Amino acid sequence: MSTQRLSEQGLDLLFRQARSQNGWRDQPVDDETLVTLYDLVRWGPTSVNSCPARIVFLRSTAAKQRLLPALSPGNVDKVLGAPVTAIIGYDAAFHHQLPRLFPHNPDVRDWFAQQPDLIELTALRNSSLQGGYFILAARALGLDCGPMSGFDHQRVDREFFGDDSCFPGMQVKTNFLCNLGYGDPDKLFPRSPRLSFEECCSLL
Amino acid sequence: MSTQRLSEQGLDLLFRQARSQNGWRDQPVDDETLVTLYDLVRWGPTSVNSCPARIVFLRSTAAKQRLLPALSPGNVDKVLGAPVTAIIGYDAAFHHQLPRLFPHNPDVRDWFAQQPDLIELTALRNSSLQGGYFILAARALGLDCGPMSGFDHQRVDREFFGDDSCFPGMQVKTNFLCNLGYGDPDKLFPRSPRLSFEECCSLL
Repeated sequence: MSTQRLSEQGLDLLFRQARSQNGWRDQPVDDETLVTLYDLVRWGPTSVNSCPARIVFLRSTAAKQRLLPALSPGNVDKVLGAPVTAIIGYDAAFHHQLPRLFPHNPDVRDWFAQQPDLIELTALRNSSLQGGYFILAARALGLDCGPMSGFDHQRVDREFFGDDSCFPGMQVKTNFLCNLGYGDPDKLFPRSPRLSFEECCSLL
Repeated sequence: MSTQRLSEQGLDLLFRQARSQNGWRDQPVDDETLVTLYDLVRWGPTSVNSCPARIVFLRSTAAKQRLLPALSPGNVDKVLGAPVTAIIGYDAAFHHQLPRLFPHNPDVRDWFAQQPDLIELTALRNSSLQGGYFILAARALGLDCGPMSGFDHQRVDREFFGDDSCFPGMQVKTNFLCNLGYGDPDKLFPRSPRLSFEECCSLL
């Protein structure tokens, strides 16, 4: 694969022209697209193939109503207007899956035994990596994203992961939220500046 | 942009056919490619446009020698064989940049004042998101990646960020490592399994 590269149009779609959306056009996102989205995200690399991300897609108004009390005020209308709001969480006991996910070294599970800080750090780092894959995979499918960090994590955890209704037997915690749909360009803010290569990168 | 999508070939390149590489062909990566890579990564969204990721590209043998004592034994040959090893770190005082990076609300910096846990969590989450953008942007440019978590973080921090040589005046910490180059398909492991949509996703 390494002699190929994306077209300039593809690079624009994923990186240079894509914008985080605040408002949404009245155009639904069907479940098949969400399945296709996950089927891309899951191939992205994670440490010891831990794959800790777990995702709840809120499509109905009733499901979104359960999220609203946890949101910062500025995020309420964004969620209500979006066709889908995804809760990107992580399995806080992901290591129990490692004998199956990392078959060439089943002992990897033992690296995490009695290491709650390492479990939490690994789950957060790798579910965030998968969050990056999620945002770019959504854009690759023609969707727009509106990622959000302004909410009460513990309240979302209690509401959606406090019982076994979403992920039976798993200990899932919330990482961040991401609206999905087709953005309304009239609701965009001016694009904020980015740091230069010289500020962020060092060549040794 | 939202009516476009990547071609099937593009989806294969980024997600479905891409593999984490263990061995490398003898083909260099020039500095211009690294600049182009960062110029894609920087457009990816981060919370309050915090852009916490900082990247050191180790190209010379002398620079890689400084990394070796911190590596797990299994990662030494991977690093020595790769044209470039990137240290993906984060600015642990990123909030000082927010008046410039988030100009429509300069008070955002104050959300983080005296909140070391929030700073650390935000920096880790968002530099990992940017790590996801980094891996997919590299693949978009035709590079292969070999991300690695097996190393002593504090030792890498001391060696590369213990003085002002890389990022003057910044408090940078290491998140993960990522080899870059053109992979040797003979060194690939069989692909590990992934979790199904039903195991990882819930539709509400």
